[in-house]
Amino acid sequence: MPTYTLDQLARLLTPGHTGDADILIHGVSSLEEATGDTIAFADDAKMLDKVMASQAAAVLVPVDFPDTGERLVWRVDKPRIAFLKITELYVKKHAREGIHEKASVDPAARLGEDVSVAPCAVISQQAVVGDRCRIGPGAFIGEGVVLGKECIIEANAAILPGAILGDRVIVHSNATISADGFGFVWMDDHHHKVPQIGRVEIGDDVEIGASSCIDRATLGATRIGKGTKIDNQVHVGHNCDIGEHVILVAQVGISGSVSVGDHSVLGGKVGVVGHLKIGSGTTVGGRSTVTKDIPDKVHYWGTPARDFRKAMREQAAAARLPDLVKQVKEMQKEIERLRALMTEQDDS
Amino acid sequence: MPTYTLDQLARLLTPGHTGDADILIHGVSSLEEATGDTIAFADDAKMLDKVMASQAAAVLVPVDFPDTGERLVWRVDKPRIAFLKITELYVKKHAREGIHEKASVDPAARLGEDVSVAPCAVISQQAVVGDRCRIGPGAFIGEGVVLGKECIIEANAAILPGAILGDRVIVHSNATISADGFGFVWMDDHHHKVPQIGRVEIGDDVEIGASSCIDRATLGATRIGKGTKIDNQVHVGHNCDIGEHVILVAQVGISGSVSVGDHSVLGGKVGVVGHLKIGSGTTVGGRSTVTKDIPDKVHYWGTPARDFRKAMREQAAAARLPDLVKQVKEMQKEIERLRALMTEQDDS
Amino acid sequence: MPTYTLDQLARLLTPGHTGDADILIHGVSSLEEATGDTIAFADDAKMLDKVMASQAAAVLVPVDFPDTGERLVWRVDKPRIAFLKITELYVKKHAREGIHEKASVDPAARLGEDVSVAPCAVISQQAVVGDRCRIGPGAFIGEGVVLGKECIIEANAAILPGAILGDRVIVHSNATISADGFGFVWMDDHHHKVPQIGRVEIGDDVEIGASSCIDRATLGATRIGKGTKIDNQVHVGHNCDIGEHVILVAQVGISGSVSVGDHSVLGGKVGVVGHLKIGSGTTVGGRSTVTKDIPDKVHYWGTPARDFRKAMREQAAAARLPDLVKQVKEMQKEIERLRALMTEQDDS
Repeated sequence: MPTYTLDQLARLLTPGHTGDADILIHGVSSLEEATGDTIAFADDAKMLDKVMASQAAAVLVPVDFPDTGERLVWRVDKPRIAFLKITELYVKKHAREGIHEKASVDPAARLGEDVSVAPCAVISQQAVVGDRCRIGPGAFIGEGVVLGKECIIEANAAILPGAILGDRVIVHSNATISADGFGFVWMDDHHHKVPQIGRVEIGDDVEIGASSCIDRATLGATRIGKGTKIDNQVHVGHNCDIGEHVILVAQVGISGSVSVGDHSVLGGKVGVVGHLKIGSGTTVGGRSTVTKDIPDKVHYWGTPARDFRKAMREQAAAARLPDLVKQVKEMQKEIERLRALMTEQDDS
Repeated sequence: MPTYTLDQLARLLTPGHTGDADILIHGVSSLEEATGDTIAFADDAKMLDKVMASQAAAVLVPVDFPDTGERLVWRVDKPRIAFLKITELYVKKHAREGIHEKASVDPAARLGEDVSVAPCAVISQQAVVGDRCRIGPGAFIGEGVVLGKECIIEANAAILPGAILGDRVIVHSNATISADGFGFVWMDDHHHKVPQIGRVEIGDDVEIGASSCIDRATLGATRIGKGTKIDNQVHVGHNCDIGEHVILVAQVGISGSVSVGDHSVLGGKVGVVGHLKIGSGTTVGGRSTVTKDIPDKVHYWGTPARDFRKAMREQAAAARLPDLVKQVKEMQKEIERLRALMTEQDDS
Repeated sequence: MPTYTLDQLARLLTPGHTGDADILIHGVSSLEEATGDTIAFADDAKMLDKVMASQAAAVLVPVDFPDTGERLVWRVDKPRIAFLKITELYVKKHAREGIHEKASVDPAARLGEDVSVAPCAVISQQAVVGDRCRIGPGAFIGEGVVLGKECIIEANAAILPGAILGDRVIVHSNATISADGFGFVWMDDHHHKVPQIGRVEIGDDVEIGASSCIDRATLGATRIGKGTKIDNQVHVGHNCDIGEHVILVAQVGISGSVSVGDHSVLGGKVGVVGHLKIGSGTTVGGRSTVTKDIPDKVHYWGTPARDFRKAMREQAAAARLPDLVKQVKEMQKEIERLRALMTEQDDS
């Protein structure tokens, strides 16, 4: 773990910050958990009290943060980003660990330079593992799988045949890449398995959460575009085409052959019916069910997913529904009264 | 990987197809990804342009597909099925791999003939593994587990004590069979665990998706009938009785002691409350929540799940709700106007 | 497997029960699966026929159960609890298995007494494993992880760096503890990963289901209070604070920084938006979506989650909505008729 003096960190955040050159800073922390040797941050003036009470050696705050007197703060444009950069200084660099004697690497696998393979990881024949990849304990790299450079495959993840990963892809524990797509045809008296012989192509800088599953294509490829981030327990069915820089939040489920445009965001637990097309730059709110195509740059929500404001109006109306039912009943009576009255008048 | 000549494949699809006996076909592909040595298919006349543009050596099409001139097509009753059969010719047959030296097979386990056990797979004492089973890397076969013939247990799947599998069962990566059911009783000041000592019985030809969980019974058995196909990330609670040839799509969650009849289909993300009975031949649409018993051969949808058409009518009405609220408000005013008018007339 | 005579078991249930001292009882069973050497239970008079037909050596029944003649029953206050206690007598005690030669235990890990480490389990440097813990096949205990006493880590579970577990914690197969939280900031042209360097703190007697994921905190800790029970495929995001004796049913998904009070219950598939606070002793029904804070000791349901009875009234009203639409249409016509009539009268 590296250490820096407070002054060194201050100068990394130029211009104009200072700190004691003697205090060694050992890392970052939240305001509450700060000790005298950590840096913290606050991005809202509401946190003034916490900033004043914090033990942090210095606190990153916005330029317009209230006066803090003696309390050392560093005023920056974006405290969260500056904090992120300091955090990255302290993130542990993994040592080169080489290939553990209890790993199993097939002689016909091709490993790049400085690859780490943890105990009980298994790398199959014809697999290609790029430079500086780290294969975690118990992880599986199947026959013919290709990993780019600097991928991290966490403990017990399974990357099955058909998968081709770009550079710097992170696959978290217990995720499954390139399991068979779910395809059957009814034949005589049973569901007959359709062989799933396609690929999964994953772009650079993709991250895939724990227990997520990206199925291989029946034919052709299931694609995840570069820079896309996938949370835990997400399911992406066979032959999907997920764009670049997409966000799929936890427990999203996407049926087969769906396309999602670049920069779109699907909230937690969103479900998407098969063969649909979701545009680019579109947000689908959590728990929505997408039942037809969605255009670019819209905000959709609900089951079925529809324009967010429309859905909100309907939801607000639904909450008034029991009252509406009563009101209509009253009106019905009133109409009958009026009619009776008119008949009376008419008779009179 | 086997190869066939175009002519050999044509004759497998008799009657009346022909192909060049010299062209070696190396596999199947989509129309778009076809190369000169693959077979593709199209099941709709709309795909005519793609068929004409495809590099496929031959394309399987329906009998009534439009004329394709010089372009070699094979006209068949069911192109998808014919394509499936050709695909199966090319699916890689796994070589007998024997027991890898980095696998761990307890001396008191009983293995049939030609069983493959991959590196870091673990087979426990008293486990029985049928002929020609393939146990993937890192997979676990617990004490006393029984696997029939030709089962495929993929990488890092866990088959825990209590599980009894039929023949040709496929369990995908990171699935868990026979974990403890979720059962507790409140005792004094804590949730006290109810020992889960029952079984999981899985019939022949069942397929269980990646990261799916089939819990063992508290007492007795959780059952999955033969031919049932379960997608990824499905949860089946303890003591459920899932029938034969059932389809459970991704992310379905079934609480304890539910029964599902033969040939039923539960769409993606369906949830089922405990102790319910879903009939045979019934379809429950995606995202539904089953809150009471469902009869045979119906189509249900929604939360709570109800007759599909009824649910659709309600949904359509809900979309008109904001307008309805306005309309009722207008009517209310109109009634008041009428009443005022009548009172006037009455007074006049 | 221990055995007791019927008489020994009867005396364990004092006062006043008897049984044949010669019959050896080999375990417990359901009424239906009972054999002459098992104990079963029934907690409802409706089960009288099954009790009479059962082969169980003795059946635990409530004190006020109908007369069973010759059929041996033991009348107790709480048959289910008494049955649980007998069951526990028969639950297999795991033998001390020691450290399997195919496990991988780093020399710099610290293991307590009588720890079992199964084949292909991996324990990293600086990990601390308490007395009598059982680490299942293929399970991973990351660098610096702390396990209290008597934890059970099932096959292929992954406990990653940052995790600190109390005593008697059970983690089921393929669960992931302390994977990175899902945190990114948009920087220039990409989602930039926010380092996740916090902890996961899990209290005593917590149980975590198969394929569940508890993410580590960005900073600080994700907490699971003592005695909390988590079902399969549950997702708990970074920095959540889940109280004590909470129940999270299968497929619950909780976004980051949510707090859940002690003794609350979240039903299956409940989703919770980030940064919310759910009170203590509160129940949120299955499939609900929590979109704002929820107080203590309430019963909420729906999307958005709201008072259960209110939600039920709205749902009932929604079911009548198509009829309401028709009714309003009829009323509209009637109002027009009345107005026409009045105009007529007025003219007359």
